Amino acid sequence: MKIIFLGTGSGMPTLERNVSALALIFKEKNKIWLFDCGEGTQQQLQKAALKLSRIEKIFITHIHGDHTFGLPGLLASRGLQGGKEANKLQIFGPEIVEDYLNLIQDITRTYFPYPIEIKTIPADSTQGIIYEEEKFLVRYLKLFHNVKSFAYAVEEKKERKHFLIEKARQLNIPPGPVYRALKNEDRVCLPDGRVLEGKDFIEKFAQKRKIVICGDTYYSQELVNFAQGADLLIHEATFSQKEEDLAQKNFHSTPVLAAKIAREAGVKELILTHISSRYNSRNKGEVKEEDLLKEAQEIFKDTFLARDLMEFSI
Amino acid sequence: MKIIFLGTGSGMPTLERNVSALALIFKEKNKIWLFDCGEGTQQQLQKAALKLSRIEKIFITHIHGDHTFGLPGLLASRGLQGGKEANKLQIFGPEIVEDYLNLIQDITRTYFPYPIEIKTIPADSTQGIIYEEEKFLVRYLKLFHNVKSFAYAVEEKKERKHFLIEKARQLNIPPGPVYRALKNEDRVCLPDGRVLEGKDFIEKFAQKRKIVICGDTYYSQELVNFAQGADLLIHEATFSQKEEDLAQKNFHSTPVLAAKIAREAGVKELILTHISSRYNSRNKGEVKEEDLLKEAQEIFKDTFLARDLMEFSI
Repeated sequence: MKIIFLGTGSGMPTLERNVSALALIFKEKNKIWLFDCGEGTQQQLQKAALKLSRIEKIFITHIHGDHTFGLPGLLASRGLQGGKEANKLQIFGPEIVEDYLNLIQDITRTYFPYPIEIKTIPADSTQGIIYEEEKFLVRYLKLFHNVKSFAYAVEEKKERKHFLIEKARQLNIPPGPVYRALKNEDRVCLPDGRVLEGKDFIEKFAQKRKIVICGDTYYSQELVNFAQGADLLIHEATFSQKEEDLAQKNFHSTPVLAAKIAREAGVKELILTHISSRYNSRNKGEVKEEDLLKEAQEIFKDTFLARDLMEFSI
Repeated sequence: MKIIFLGTGSGMPTLERNVSALALIFKEKNKIWLFDCGEGTQQQLQKAALKLSRIEKIFITHIHGDHTFGLPGLLASRGLQGGKEANKLQIFGPEIVEDYLNLIQDITRTYFPYPIEIKTIPADSTQGIIYEEEKFLVRYLKLFHNVKSFAYAVEEKKERKHFLIEKARQLNIPPGPVYRALKNEDRVCLPDGRVLEGKDFIEKFAQKRKIVICGDTYYSQELVNFAQGADLLIHEATFSQKEEDLAQKNFHSTPVLAAKIAREAGVKELILTHISSRYNSRNKGEVKEEDLLKEAQEIFKDTFLARDLMEFSI
């Protein structure tokens, strides 16, 4: 799996950081899950050479414009690109996302020529499972913001297996039914008399991958459990710790608060995003973006600062 | 005055052409009037180094998303940039624009910390004056599209005067009250005995400038009168004349239809915009963007093809 950050700014876009969106890319299936969709997300996807038709699911953390104003345009363009043949799309998020999309379609006479299924988080629910398939499930957790805002955890359900095709080729094993049997970990007798054990051709990854992607939030104690043991935690860090009062007042976080969550949850890596434009190099403030990273790294060493179009493999 | 094209594509953005928007810039007053606001317009304004606080009025031609999906984000960012001190903004357009903005604010909990005055075109009106001030007025005309779509004409009301300051300096006339009197075209007696006639220091421009900016439309006979004698007509040309059937079916224009309007209205210059992505160089179609320009120039020589961030002085 691979993540591409499409927008890493907060509130309003700048030339360096567009508003919130990130793409989770499943290499095997050539499919994309999008998390949030601020204005200009479809343009960012073009810059990243990611086709709209590959987007299979969109998860919205909360309704604020810097996370949703790109949704109507993206959905409309996906239809223009793919026409009626564009495949079905699923959208997950707080209940209000459904009202938002219905009203936009109605008022602006926008028509999506492919099926859209909207599955919303029940009004009184603070955590649960919003989506489940054979290999993955997605949990949600309500965070601590001035509108309903959620974190999503994408969790692998089973250990992954990798068939060692090169090993099979080197042993001159003929492709076809024999390969399939080996992949199933069966024992195989070849016409030339050799006996092969399927398990010798399978590499297993015991670690089930888990990625946690948070919406806007102040420090949330519940997130520590929710993110427990994750390979990657993506958390907002809108304000510097020097402006923690502003963070608290506006229900946002600082690098220090995010790093505390990462440490307490025992995650492997932390990426900070949703960075305020006040810290960019054109502004004359004392604190710069590099300082945000340092603030977090003092508490949690394996912290990174997101940048637009940055890729991260898991 | 100067025009900067912010988005010159049609329907969906491409890497070369964002969706519709253009800025009319009044050099004297440092103010901007925006015409349409497709998704990503605020990002385009940043690329053109135009501040949101300078936007004084926004004219919306019609409600379709590729002309309006950037409006909520732009208005929100204008507040974040300027805070409560951001000056008043006026928005003009079809009635539905008011519903659109009210619902977006309500659903996404977006707050604009400065006054917004929305003045809509009366439901049954096909033409009239929507705005008037000392030096300019703005007329509207209903076009021929599948939703209510309008053209706007920005017309200078009086002849312009230019004070020949260099001439005054060369004659060693002291600045201050004498300059003011000359600007008023008064007769002035200098202490050294010279008698000056104000009119000798004024250059007059008899031509009152007129710019016509059209929303989406098929060929509109009414537009010929409306655009009569304009310095500049900005008209859509979504499809090539080779696909005139598509243009007609979708209530759009071709370069040939736009050029006929320009010729019949006796305008000075025509700029084609709202260009379909099907003609860009990455597509393998027979017709290219250069061909669109040629189609129009065969009928109206002084035609230009808009490009994103292109500037045009009037």
